[in-house]
Amino acid sequence: MRIGFDIGGSHIAGGMFDDAHRRVGFIEEPFPREAPESVPKLIADMTAKLAAGKKSIECVGLAVPGSIDFARGVVLHAYNLGFHSFPLKDNVAALMPETPVFMGNDADVAALAELYAGAFMGAQSAVLLTLGTGLGGGIILRGRLFTGGMGNGTETGHFILDMHGERCTCGSVGCSETVCSATALARAGAAAAASARDSLIAKRSGGDAAKIDARTVIDCAKAGDPTALAVFDEYTTALASAAVSLIHILDPEVIAFGGGVSGAGDFLLTPVRAKVDEMSFFPRHARIELASLGNGAGMLGAALLMLDAGKA
Amino acid sequence: MRIGFDIGGSHIAGGMFDDAHRRVGFIEEPFPREAPESVPKLIADMTAKLAAGKKSIECVGLAVPGSIDFARGVVLHAYNLGFHSFPLKDNVAALMPETPVFMGNDADVAALAELYAGAFMGAQSAVLLTLGTGLGGGIILRGRLFTGGMGNGTETGHFILDMHGERCTCGSVGCSETVCSATALARAGAAAAASARDSLIAKRSGGDAAKIDARTVIDCAKAGDPTALAVFDEYTTALASAAVSLIHILDPEVIAFGGGVSGAGDFLLTPVRAKVDEMSFFPRHARIELASLGNGAGMLGAALLMLDAGKA
Repeated sequence: MRIGFDIGGSHIAGGMFDDAHRRVGFIEEPFPREAPESVPKLIADMTAKLAAGKKSIECVGLAVPGSIDFARGVVLHAYNLGFHSFPLKDNVAALMPETPVFMGNDADVAALAELYAGAFMGAQSAVLLTLGTGLGGGIILRGRLFTGGMGNGTETGHFILDMHGERCTCGSVGCSETVCSATALARAGAAAAASARDSLIAKRSGGDAAKIDARTVIDCAKAGDPTALAVFDEYTTALASAAVSLIHILDPEVIAFGGGVSGAGDFLLTPVRAKVDEMSFFPRHARIELASLGNGAGMLGAALLMLDAGKA
Repeated sequence: MRIGFDIGGSHIAGGMFDDAHRRVGFIEEPFPREAPESVPKLIADMTAKLAAGKKSIECVGLAVPGSIDFARGVVLHAYNLGFHSFPLKDNVAALMPETPVFMGNDADVAALAELYAGAFMGAQSAVLLTLGTGLGGGIILRGRLFTGGMGNGTETGHFILDMHGERCTCGSVGCSETVCSATALARAGAAAAASARDSLIAKRSGGDAAKIDARTVIDCAKAGDPTALAVFDEYTTALASAAVSLIHILDPEVIAFGGGVSGAGDFLLTPVRAKVDEMSFFPRHARIELASLGNGAGMLGAALLMLDAGKA
């Protein structure tokens, strides 16, 4: 049995998985915001509860939404958790000396989960793009999680697509996140509604642009609203541009979209695939797919970090 | 002794290299434009001349400006050479049954040459960007040439930086080549000169925009011409954007600029380094350097393909 924890700013979720990657146990606790330094003890307690009565736990994996120094097992910055230069891995390992402990970035390990039990099964190279509030993701190369040539990890939300566009929260300009995230789609929808007051999308928002989210844009586009369709067309061009950039640098076998916007399904995939076919240099290039695992991908991916390390 | 050929549309250049990667022999012939199918025989003859009197030739490598099916050793398309689905490697190998023959893309093998004898020595991950008429380059990962997850190779001139920009010759929009090549710099210089007739750059061109090349822009910028400086500033932002995108996807130890524009030296490096520092997510990121090998990199890189294959 392998255990994986997805450590988020509101909750810590733990899952126990068998060799077929099926979840056979689950536990959840609120994140201790007032005392983040107590997280290692909490993880150890949750592990003991999950493992109660089980003969052996092969490993414990930790998925963290932040930057990691992989060589030292230190969380450099996880702003949502209040972790800064925090030796999370060692502190957890000290509380369970019999059990190997691994740590990874939450977006990276989601890609690992797709590799072992989802959209990337059978592939040796793949990229996951998670279209949510931000743009996360992970890269698989040669059958393993790729965490960068210098061990900084990868930031698939921050390669540049629109160098004359908006300033990104990261300090750069026109990053993939500024044009491909769910937030970007919602913002473009609000701007379009403001200048097309007769459109369905403007009517749905009742004059309040703050009410327009990615779902509103997608629903109105599906309903045939020309204003929403134009916004969505620009959005699928941005996704195709992101995919083509990744194809020309990494040439992966699969690129999969996850996160909230991926719920649009074929309505999203069909135009993105057509645009990638048109824009790619390579006639035989990455398949464009939907991620197949949902929110549980973080726990499963964390539980799989030991298998990934074993391939080194 | 290892032999490498750089096969170009005007000439085929062959070099013989010792174990310290020093060139100890050289031969050059015009490319047989009227009969490209005779290239294998010509390569065999040139090899025999280079190797005359030498006891043993370890390998022969071929660098080709085009797309390659690595699994089959076939040149898919090399437009400048007139090769289409041409089994160059096997045809050469058939003429020298005692000698292992290898084949690679010319931009890729230049990166390999930098790895063994240039700017990438000591690194395990690196990217070369060759700023010439087009934008070429190659990627080193885990100490080896990276030719893509699907074996298509990589196209470092065709990741997208300016998705609302110019259409690229490849069919996509705003590729790195459209804003980072020497051609892009010259074009921007010509456009700026046309609307600033009093500028030094306009005067140097004598009213003929076609006379403005990358060198003109760099020389006028060095001389302090505000129009040329503005164009060059936009260009170094484009190079920094390319570097930051590569850093966030690959996190390499070194990124090096080669090709004509790299002759600008520190005048180019200093602003690019400052902008990369400002834009990169990672405080500790790739060094930005100049490529250290010149036109001979293709021959040396081709000669090194056997060593690279041996690391598989």
